[in-house]
Amino acid sequence: MAVRRIMIITAYDGTDYSGWAMQKDPAIPTIEGELKKAVEDLTGEQINLQGASRTDAGVHALCNYAVFDTHAAIPPEKYAPALNTRLPQSIRIRKSREVDRTFNPRDVRTLKTYEYHILNCQIPVPTMTRYAVHTYFRLDVGRMRQGAEYLIGEHDFRSFCNAATQAQTTVREITNIEISERNLPVPAILYGKKNQPAQQDLARQIILTVQGKGFLYNMVRIIAGTLMEVGRGLREPEDVKTMLEARDRQAAGPTAPANGLILTDYRILP
Amino acid sequence: MAVRRIMIITAYDGTDYSGWAMQKDPAIPTIEGELKKAVEDLTGEQINLQGASRTDAGVHALCNYAVFDTHAAIPPEKYAPALNTRLPQSIRIRKSREVDRTFNPRDVRTLKTYEYHILNCQIPVPTMTRYAVHTYFRLDVGRMRQGAEYLIGEHDFRSFCNAATQAQTTVREITNIEISERNLPVPAILYGKKNQPAQQDLARQIILTVQGKGFLYNMVRIIAGTLMEVGRGLREPEDVKTMLEARDRQAAGPTAPANGLILTDYRILP
Repeated sequence: MAVRRIMIITAYDGTDYSGWAMQKDPAIPTIEGELKKAVEDLTGEQINLQGASRTDAGVHALCNYAVFDTHAAIPPEKYAPALNTRLPQSIRIRKSREVDRTFNPRDVRTLKTYEYHILNCQIPVPTMTRYAVHTYFRLDVGRMRQGAEYLIGEHDFRSFCNAATQAQTTVREITNIEISERNLPVPAILYGKKNQPAQQDLARQIILTVQGKGFLYNMVRIIAGTLMEVGRGLREPEDVKTMLEARDRQAAGPTAPANGLILTDYRILP
Repeated sequence: MAVRRIMIITAYDGTDYSGWAMQKDPAIPTIEGELKKAVEDLTGEQINLQGASRTDAGVHALCNYAVFDTHAAIPPEKYAPALNTRLPQSIRIRKSREVDRTFNPRDVRTLKTYEYHILNCQIPVPTMTRYAVHTYFRLDVGRMRQGAEYLIGEHDFRSFCNAATQAQTTVREITNIEISERNLPVPAILYGKKNQPAQQDLARQIILTVQGKGFLYNMVRIIAGTLMEVGRGLREPEDVKTMLEARDRQAAGPTAPANGLILTDYRILP
């Protein structure tokens, strides 16, 4: 059988994994490690898996992909069901297809979308905090949107990048940031004497949707952590401009927790 | 200190619990067991916790409540924060308040709402299946709605009740059933050659919202299991009428899995 290059498109709950990238210690569970093991078990070959996005420990994905070369005579679209029987439930292959032998995830231009989910209320609701970060400080979404404006476009995002980065350049382009909010229903039994929810029992879901052509190490989480500080009133929206100009990780806000982050869309540009 | 009756309103992720009700073996984790332990630790008293709804193993809640009597001199609204420091993260007290000494969860008339969440697509998305049941059989929501119509109103729900029930009567009133659906976004990288999602990659979220004045053991899960069979085409919508009339658990569909069920609203009627 001639060699084929296969693309597998994955979705995963990152809670129990130390991120995408395999660690030196093979006992540490990673998305890449689980995928490699499943492909090798299926094909009977040693394979080299080239991943697209190395998501951090605890980060989730609706779509992330990898490619590998194989001599196996398995129809390309059959890798998805065959690998799913070999993977833990927390990782699924949504689709598999053959790609050109020259296709390399590092060479293609892409547009990616991340969502950062925040639960803004006094007491966290347990069914919501696996995939959202809870904060009881009331966030002003208008201020967060003002701050976000400074980040859209092509900038040097060195201040919004983990200092341990190995990237050759810290210039990246954010094509859009949207911030949506919705009030979650308040169960009637929580209502106060006027038969309506008290201010302190209102719960809001805030979603930051960040779209860009590429992201640096921890970049979306640092953006989320910074905009949460702006929303809380600890920083001014226009401080975001100064932070960018500083080109210093110390200038921006904290790295928001990983569990609120999910890679939701991936588009390979022509 | 005089005796006070305190109501605690809880929310929980039921995944890791054997339901609300305490088991004979105290090593088996239950919501009631965790709450009782936390209240006794806080007050230093042995307490008798009277719960409102005994949710099944694996079922979740945004609001369920319990009452207990105590001599402790703790302001009623302070039980919520004080108990939350003593409970696992998967159980939270959303509110605590004093109620009349005569208030008994078994005597009050209530209106409860349960949601049953279904993920209808070929391959399950791991970040969605903790709180939704995946089925790859395409469900026809129109048929499910037709079938649901027969269940609304006051009926003998013996066919929709676990045969092990200890209820004195199996007559209950369902005030409403709504079935909503929405297509979840399909990541662009899954698109086919026409730059649009293939039929097999569409993912739908279907939510059954069932409101009633009281529910029997497994009742909402048997309703969900039955309506899923109707949606799949294994049963006709009008079969639901025959199932009700049979007054026999064997007549209705299977009990749908617990993890798709969540108690979302509780209202105490005057």
